[in-house]
Amino acid sequence: MKIAIVYYSKTGNTKKVAELIAQGANIIENVEAKSMSIEEVDNEFLTEAKAVIFGSPTITGTFSWQIKQWLDTARTVKFGGKLGAVFATANYVGGGGEVAELALIAELLVKGMLVYSSGVAEGQPFIHFGPVCIQEGDEGQKERARIFGERIAKKTVELFN
Amino acid sequence: MKIAIVYYSKTGNTKKVAELIAQGANIIENVEAKSMSIEEVDNEFLTEAKAVIFGSPTITGTFSWQIKQWLDTARTVKFGGKLGAVFATANYVGGGGEVAELALIAELLVKGMLVYSSGVAEGQPFIHFGPVCIQEGDEGQKERARIFGERIAKKTVELFN
Amino acid sequence: MKIAIVYYSKTGNTKKVAELIAQGANIIENVEAKSMSIEEVDNEFLTEAKAVIFGSPTITGTFSWQIKQWLDTARTVKFGGKLGAVFATANYVGGGGEVAELALIAELLVKGMLVYSSGVAEGQPFIHFGPVCIQEGDEGQKERARIFGERIAKKTVELFN
Amino acid sequence: MKIAIVYYSKTGNTKKVAELIAQGANIIENVEAKSMSIEEVDNEFLTEAKAVIFGSPTITGTFSWQIKQWLDTARTVKFGGKLGAVFATANYVGGGGEVAELALIAELLVKGMLVYSSGVAEGQPFIHFGPVCIQEGDEGQKERARIFGERIAKKTVELFN
Repeated sequence: MKIAIVYYSKTGNTKKVAELIAQGANIIENVEAKSMSIEEVDNEFLTEAKAVIFGSPTITGTFSWQIKQWLDTARTVKFGGKLGAVFATANYVGGGGEVAELALIAELLVKGMLVYSSGVAEGQPFIHFGPVCIQEGDEGQKERARIFGERIAKKTVELFN
Repeated sequence: MKIAIVYYSKTGNTKKVAELIAQGANIIENVEAKSMSIEEVDNEFLTEAKAVIFGSPTITGTFSWQIKQWLDTARTVKFGGKLGAVFATANYVGGGGEVAELALIAELLVKGMLVYSSGVAEGQPFIHFGPVCIQEGDEGQKERARIFGERIAKKTVELFN
Repeated sequence: MKIAIVYYSKTGNTKKVAELIAQGANIIENVEAKSMSIEEVDNEFLTEAKAVIFGSPTITGTFSWQIKQWLDTARTVKFGGKLGAVFATANYVGGGGEVAELALIAELLVKGMLVYSSGVAEGQPFIHFGPVCIQEGDEGQKERARIFGERIAKKTVELFN
Repeated sequence: MKIAIVYYSKTGNTKKVAELIAQGANIIENVEAKSMSIEEVDNEFLTEAKAVIFGSPTITGTFSWQIKQWLDTARTVKFGGKLGAVFATANYVGGGGEVAELALIAELLVKGMLVYSSGVAEGQPFIHFGPVCIQEGDEGQKERARIFGERIAKKTVELFN
């Protein structure tokens, strides 16, 4: 079961977090997770993916225009019905990462995705809307990103198997 | 398969929309949908429900404190893993219904629900975050509410059957 | 006192609403309001403006990437300390206009603007986050847009005179 | 010039941050800042205040129902035209503090307040929507809260003197 992690990265931090999430997701049996920049999307993989996790740096309080542009123009892939999830990097605590995530979630809902974050339902660590890493993330934030990948992968298998 | 529509209603409008959504959901085979005020929740039904649709009037730009209070204190029912969806009533176009819905969605994600609205993926009528009715809704808005119930019910059967 | 209405328009609807807002603002004495597309910004006027009103169509649940790109790259104008306000067009009631407005407001706050909508404080018509027009707006929505321009202009004079 | 910091605190953390903000605001000449719980509001002070800063713990991804209830029922004080600002405490990075702040900002806009956070316009430390403290805040977060108080006070004097 394929899971795509699609990101835009400006400084390399968001790319690193995408890779941690992919690593976490790949722990789950029968899951093949792959991270890819919006600049090098594997459309075949993305089309087959049952879940897509989107990530962005936080730019002036929301996700980057590059992601928005890509989401609005890359109409070859249909996201409706897939599981959708999000993550963000930000420069400091309170620096907009969660608001970027919620704006991205709004977009995924309009595309008809099933949106999931695990929240507090899977115990610690809690993940409200998606993991937020401050720059590339401290150890706890990185661990949360890996676990997020694992949880999204588990839920994907549970829903679509 | 049980689906609960849980609402708070101040003037009766939100109650009416809840009933339209229940009516739409009950069209789908094997679905038993029931609307209930937060003041008279059927906890057994709610516990068994595979999907819960939450509705609120818009009060000063977000959902009512009564819903918030109920969501934060009614800890007997676990919402994690259920399908979650939302609707709102508002007093005029631009009067905060969508923002109330998105704030409610944020809450459902933290509870670990799978959030779904159908968006544009099911064709017309589009339903961005959930149906918004201006007061009790005009004919088009009422029809959107019924169809929303139907779509949530279909998705619930598809996911949990 | 200068007030700029800066918009991106795809179909022409957002442009029309921008013009209505400018028209409303120009009613106020000593105010010179001018609407301009992000594609033809008058940077001198914008720099001198005490208030800037931003408008966008709603694209998949938030404001357009063109506005985001422009806001993030047009760094010649400093928005900090100016009055900021927003409006949006959307395709239907519940179609994301308010959520687009709130995402835009988040961006303006990060830029250090004073954000104002008038809300319910100026009596009817209420304007929650900014006027929302469905397509080019019905008569009531157009009137709300004009009145919004007037209110923002009044507040600008009150604050910066 | 009076500035009120109005908060709800469950564990005492939000109260502590409110006091830091008041301390920061009181540095500015001619400003009298006072923090008060919604359970013991000084209505006369609040009525005279030119700015009101609202604070809440983050409960399941948004601000607490107690604040919402108070905001919707305490109609003796008119907030329209005052400067409004927000802060939040949360349990961890990504734990909803910013989303709670933005939901609160939506409410303040509907009340007709001028909303301000300073953003990136005043240089470091940046404050996107308002300061977020993880629990009672680490040293950097506490310092940001104090500076926020100072900035809001400066802006209040600048606008209303």
